[in-house]
Amino acid sequence: MRPVYLDNNATTRTDPAVVAAMLPFFSEHFGNASSTHAFGEHVGEALKKARKQLQALLGAQFDHEIVYTSGGTESDNAAVLSALETQEGRDEIVTTTVEHPAVLTLVAHLEKTRGIKAHLIGVDGQGRLDLDAFAAALSPKTALVSVMWANNETGTLFPVADLAREAHAVGALFHTDAVQAVGKVAIDLKSTEIDMLSLSGHKLHGPKGIGALYVRKGVKFRPLVRGGHQERGRRGGTENVPGIIGLGAAAELALGHMEEERTRVRALRDRLEQGILQQVSHTLLNGDGDNRLPNTANVAFEYLDGEAVLHNLNKAGVAASTGSACTSGSTEPSHVLRAMNLPASALHGALRLSLSRENTAEDVDRVLEVLPDIVARLRAMSPAWAAATGGASALADHV
Amino acid sequence: MRPVYLDNNATTRTDPAVVAAMLPFFSEHFGNASSTHAFGEHVGEALKKARKQLQALLGAQFDHEIVYTSGGTESDNAAVLSALETQEGRDEIVTTTVEHPAVLTLVAHLEKTRGIKAHLIGVDGQGRLDLDAFAAALSPKTALVSVMWANNETGTLFPVADLAREAHAVGALFHTDAVQAVGKVAIDLKSTEIDMLSLSGHKLHGPKGIGALYVRKGVKFRPLVRGGHQERGRRGGTENVPGIIGLGAAAELALGHMEEERTRVRALRDRLEQGILQQVSHTLLNGDGDNRLPNTANVAFEYLDGEAVLHNLNKAGVAASTGSACTSGSTEPSHVLRAMNLPASALHGALRLSLSRENTAEDVDRVLEVLPDIVARLRAMSPAWAAATGGASALADHV
Repeated sequence: MRPVYLDNNATTRTDPAVVAAMLPFFSEHFGNASSTHAFGEHVGEALKKARKQLQALLGAQFDHEIVYTSGGTESDNAAVLSALETQEGRDEIVTTTVEHPAVLTLVAHLEKTRGIKAHLIGVDGQGRLDLDAFAAALSPKTALVSVMWANNETGTLFPVADLAREAHAVGALFHTDAVQAVGKVAIDLKSTEIDMLSLSGHKLHGPKGIGALYVRKGVKFRPLVRGGHQERGRRGGTENVPGIIGLGAAAELALGHMEEERTRVRALRDRLEQGILQQVSHTLLNGDGDNRLPNTANVAFEYLDGEAVLHNLNKAGVAASTGSACTSGSTEPSHVLRAMNLPASALHGALRLSLSRENTAEDVDRVLEVLPDIVARLRAMSPAWAAATGGASALADHV
Repeated sequence: MRPVYLDNNATTRTDPAVVAAMLPFFSEHFGNASSTHAFGEHVGEALKKARKQLQALLGAQFDHEIVYTSGGTESDNAAVLSALETQEGRDEIVTTTVEHPAVLTLVAHLEKTRGIKAHLIGVDGQGRLDLDAFAAALSPKTALVSVMWANNETGTLFPVADLAREAHAVGALFHTDAVQAVGKVAIDLKSTEIDMLSLSGHKLHGPKGIGALYVRKGVKFRPLVRGGHQERGRRGGTENVPGIIGLGAAAELALGHMEEERTRVRALRDRLEQGILQQVSHTLLNGDGDNRLPNTANVAFEYLDGEAVLHNLNKAGVAASTGSACTSGSTEPSHVLRAMNLPASALHGALRLSLSRENTAEDVDRVLEVLPDIVARLRAMSPAWAAATGGASALADHV
């Protein structure tokens, strides 16, 4: 039986059409973009096209607002460090407790080593930002506000356009880690005040090892990686030509599938989620039900270990995750779920099922066929479940 | 007619066998290395193998001494910045005037912004390091010595093993940008005292967008890119799985072809170079004739503009370079040739022909067939040539 892939927030399958677009640039048109000879002659044109493709997906006003990087983490690091260097006299960062480690790890390091002050704004039980605390943290000392567009674990969307305006009102720059949002929700940067935006190719059916940082025209920028004049002096190093072209192809495909993401993928996700909630008692939905990525379901099974559910799902041919891929392997609840103050009974039982346009109704059926049984079997062996339910039969619980 | 590619120091063709090794990891085994499900199950093993392949090429004692990066520039930046952070109380860097911009641009920036002091050691007319000046620059204030293994423009090799010992004698770390050396000359890091070494995949028939920094076990390291726990906490960001696997395959191929590089490729280069020197008068050989990469020829045609020669060679189906690809497009002589104090008559006339194992005797024949005529034609139109030779016929000069 074909295995079912529901871990698209960790990484996606590179679309075969993307691979096909990249292939000629490995061994045929393999010259550097800057070279003037035959081996580089198609490269410059192909890179221009790829930049336009990504520009279109982002709704950026200018294609040179895109700086290619090696991925989302580098983009996030570059944005944070650049803002601190260019915003003279300001040494505070406002961000959230549920950001990706690419922001949080760096910010913690900068607090320790450079004496900057970070305000980590919390979220409520549905993962929504505490807007009052956010507004209170902003000040003339704020160099940068960095808030993700969508959370990687719950899919909860943040009101980044509003937050950018608030940041600007105190003279701060606004950056968003949009690694999970780009390709899944419509983005039109030119109609916002967002200064910088990070994205990653492999989250939208593009290749790994390529990403981009959008830097709005006019926003001062200091490179993280210094060397040659590539990317208009904003990022040194030979261009990753196949990667850039692959990202362009992936962006064009994502734009073409945006409506499908909003409708068919969302409907699949909703049916999956409702099916689980209906069939498995003591299950919570994590995240903002009304304002989420269309592809992400995060459910928590009370009195269970999500890792055990995951392991059994894997054996049944279903790939998913317990949370951020970057922290998997650990049995601690993720920092996102901890920040959301889930009930203790649910904190360890989270399962993230993240879909893509490649998923089908059969995939959902398969999960609904195997998951309730897995949960029931695990609960039948769980002392915590027995204690909580007064010894009720876990198997009978499977309605 | 098949075009002739002699610009391998700029970038190489990705070996089709490398592309074949990468391909399954785009759309089939596309999971993250850290994921536990079926889509990631082959990935971990493949990455382990790739790491061993690169370890073998470098002669590193431990495979975990390799930190994957996005390329040579990132590796160089990471090495320099890490050394300054870990070598407390030391704020000087000793490097050379002929380093790659990935080192020089960063060092210049650090001098301006962080008050570090850089000693840029010069070279002689053959591109050889001034060893007395080098020794004199070392002191207990030296945090890092960074000297390239081989120069990208002339191929001149630097005595990095000796320099590393000298650096250690004053308590400094030693880093080498070996982007041009790896894959072209035998390297056995475990028999040296080199602390850090940078390399890039696309210089050895691997893909663009992947590189590595060797960090000797026990050497303190601070990451340039911070995020998840990848690379043992030394480089955040989802692993570029196809890139790492491609680099591993390229490393294994390079090791297998090392003897050929030392013999057949060198013989081709020597025949090309001797043929040019014999057929074209007023031509100089740039670099250390006795101690060079086996693949690199750098010749300077007096009283000519190397860009004009290059342009005509391109039209004749031969791809080459006037110097570092990173500064091409500019008509200024490269910083490397300026540092070598070439005679004024030759400073603008340099042409770099860089071979690889993919070149054949026919390629060399073709260059020797077209290049002397191109030079002669250009000289016939050159007022500088006419003035210097007292109006002697440039065409007759073609012996």
